[in-house]
Amino acid sequence: MRKVFQAELEGIGEELVTMTQDVGEAMRRAWTSFATADTDLAQEVIAADARIDFLQNQLDERAIDVLALQGPVAADLRMIVGSLRMSASLERMGDLARHIAQLTRLRFPEPVVPDRILPTFQEMATLDMEIASQLTELLTTRDLELVRKIVSANSRIDDLHASVFRIVAGPDWTASAPTTADATLTSRYLERFGDHGVSVARKVSYLVTGEWEPAALS
Amino acid sequence: MRKVFQAELEGIGEELVTMTQDVGEAMRRAWTSFATADTDLAQEVIAADARIDFLQNQLDERAIDVLALQGPVAADLRMIVGSLRMSASLERMGDLARHIAQLTRLRFPEPVVPDRILPTFQEMATLDMEIASQLTELLTTRDLELVRKIVSANSRIDDLHASVFRIVAGPDWTASAPTTADATLTSRYLERFGDHGVSVARKVSYLVTGEWEPAALS
Repeated sequence: MRKVFQAELEGIGEELVTMTQDVGEAMRRAWTSFATADTDLAQEVIAADARIDFLQNQLDERAIDVLALQGPVAADLRMIVGSLRMSASLERMGDLARHIAQLTRLRFPEPVVPDRILPTFQEMATLDMEIASQLTELLTTRDLELVRKIVSANSRIDDLHASVFRIVAGPDWTASAPTTADATLTSRYLERFGDHGVSVARKVSYLVTGEWEPAALS
Repeated sequence: MRKVFQAELEGIGEELVTMTQDVGEAMRRAWTSFATADTDLAQEVIAADARIDFLQNQLDERAIDVLALQGPVAADLRMIVGSLRMSASLERMGDLARHIAQLTRLRFPEPVVPDRILPTFQEMATLDMEIASQLTELLTTRDLELVRKIVSANSRIDDLHASVFRIVAGPDWTASAPTTADATLTSRYLERFGDHGVSVARKVSYLVTGEWEPAALS
């Protein structure tokens, strides 16, 4: 029984790793489509999001089966419940990448935002991709140093998100109001992706150490 | 044992009801603070969000205890897992109300957005409050007609969210770029609140009927 249970736990862990890989890839392709106004690539990201949703459902059904059949307690139970939360965050990260691809498609053949602001979004998207990649590693190695790196990357994303408001308030920003609205939403999507990454990382940290360590993570 | 279990399930249900009441009240006060540039009221909404977070933690701990001590299966198990999901959505609804209050405080003593767009946001906020109130009723009565009403209200919110982009693209929109950014975020927060309300409603529907009924709900 214990052996079956361990195999199930490992299966759930592998599904979480697959999801982090998929959302990292979704953000990479969504960002490329956005930066190059590539509507075909954007369409691929939108279509691929269904697989992320499917993975979440599959993982959740598996977790519920384990709860029903194995009746785990203590750390094992928290691991299963934590997996349900992580899969929900990862599914949202996929949605946010899809939203960026949708903006690309909506404004095609025009680019969504002016060149002026692309470097800021480029840095945010790159940090998001790094966070996804570090989550994959964190889930595999349980190396909590990665949690610190993810929190730090997200803090930089927050700074960049704040800087977007300074850019649109500046004298060089001559874009139309609809473009300002698109830039605001893009920034918000990139920022939320990082927040969800931190949620997943903190959950792993909690499962490994048994306690929330807000001080150590901030 | 069964009796204790039923009491626990009822306790979780009551906590969900309390959370929906709190997030409805948070949106009501956040909207009032936003529409009247009332920074004191905004501060109260921000402070009160900690209670919603506390309620979520309390509900989740209770759900985990029930999973550990009672080992529920089948419908009971899905009810507990569903409660964990609902509490996460409700906690986010509280955050979104808090974000609206934070914008109010940030721009004080100026109003966040021009009068031109207030009626649109007023209607969105009113629909959000109705959704919260209908969720409270749904959790108490399990009357699935309320699910249809919530989905319909959210669909109207989506239309209003889309109309915000037409308003800022129109000739009457003369606001500054930072104000356009604020209006975009406000619209997004009001729209997401409704989405989370629908998630909770669909979850209740699923728990009552045992199946997702996307066709019946759309």
